[in-house]
Amino acid sequence: MSDAPPRRAGRPSKAVLDKGRIGDAALELVDETGDFTLPALARRLGVQAASLYHHVDGRAGVIELLREQVASAMDLGPLDDPAWDEALLGFFRSYRDVFAAHPRVVPLLTTATVRSAKVIEAYDRMATRLGEAGIPPAHAMRILTALDNFVIGSALDLAAPDVMWEVPEGVEAPALAAALAAQPTGRNRARDAFEEGLTRLLASLAAEFGVAG
Amino acid sequence: MSDAPPRRAGRPSKAVLDKGRIGDAALELVDETGDFTLPALARRLGVQAASLYHHVDGRAGVIELLREQVASAMDLGPLDDPAWDEALLGFFRSYRDVFAAHPRVVPLLTTATVRSAKVIEAYDRMATRLGEAGIPPAHAMRILTALDNFVIGSALDLAAPDVMWEVPEGVEAPALAAALAAQPTGRNRARDAFEEGLTRLLASLAAEFGVAG
Repeated sequence: MSDAPPRRAGRPSKAVLDKGRIGDAALELVDETGDFTLPALARRLGVQAASLYHHVDGRAGVIELLREQVASAMDLGPLDDPAWDEALLGFFRSYRDVFAAHPRVVPLLTTATVRSAKVIEAYDRMATRLGEAGIPPAHAMRILTALDNFVIGSALDLAAPDVMWEVPEGVEAPALAAALAAQPTGRNRARDAFEEGLTRLLASLAAEFGVAG
Repeated sequence: MSDAPPRRAGRPSKAVLDKGRIGDAALELVDETGDFTLPALARRLGVQAASLYHHVDGRAGVIELLREQVASAMDLGPLDDPAWDEALLGFFRSYRDVFAAHPRVVPLLTTATVRSAKVIEAYDRMATRLGEAGIPPAHAMRILTALDNFVIGSALDLAAPDVMWEVPEGVEAPALAAALAAQPTGRNRARDAFEEGLTRLLASLAAEFGVAG
């Protein structure tokens, strides 16, 4: 038998409000509806909106919690790979999977400056690996941002239908129709496109900066 | 003097409902709130939800109208460039600008199969250009999808803040901090990353398939 007092009927259990719970609830709300408001988030948590402000700095603060919540599933292990290009490839595969699981969060995350510690750590380690590969700091951010853009777009594509194109009857598109007929089916459609682009981007860097992985 | 009957006070003007008006209203709603429902869309148009069904095939139909609405601003002119890589570069610059103006529409568009005539035409012309460049049909979709993913991610980045990263006080991220210090400011941050990635992807294709633009 438990010593806990019996729960009062008809009342939600009032777990202590913390950033983890707020982030969880915000992620549910955005997965379901594509957005959140602070009043709707407070309602879902069963608290007053004012209570949220004790824990987060308004809308931007909630977006940073969403980023941390999503990033917590990222695997930073691949970044230790001895080959810098394998390190980036492995990390970005995990990054893509994590964002593909929450596609509706993506456009919210791009509206707010990144401050999340785990994401900062991942990008610092990637900037270090690019330096080891001979890529100067002046090129690092445009390269990391280009890779990031590609992976974010690929995550949305992985969350997309397996059949992404349909040439309507009466529309002439012979080259597209031939290309679609030759495309792999199912999940491999999006996976192949991701590997295609990321491999090309990394190989292009290795070729220019002369340090193979 | 007009022959039109006087407008009854307190009543919205009842313009004829058509796909153009529905697409406009849906785009406004998604730009503002990140999503739409058919009842909310009907309310904004001042019609019954049932009336919408005379013009669109439910939610997927509205998403296709959103795609057509956004795509109508795309410039297909660059696809006539004699050099296939310049053709793709020019088209994708326009495509990025168009989606950067409506970032919240992007994740909705990726949930539905593409049937929009203008988008089909653009991809058919690109598939043709890839064929001229010596790229076999079996590779065309994974290449076009990879380029598409990159451009979609870049459009979200172009809509993002000019200052996208901030290393919080007390967090050690020396390689990232050095990279950020060397980054251009303002709009050039996102523009440079886009040119970086798209140029590398197209150069990689030209190098492999041996037909320079």
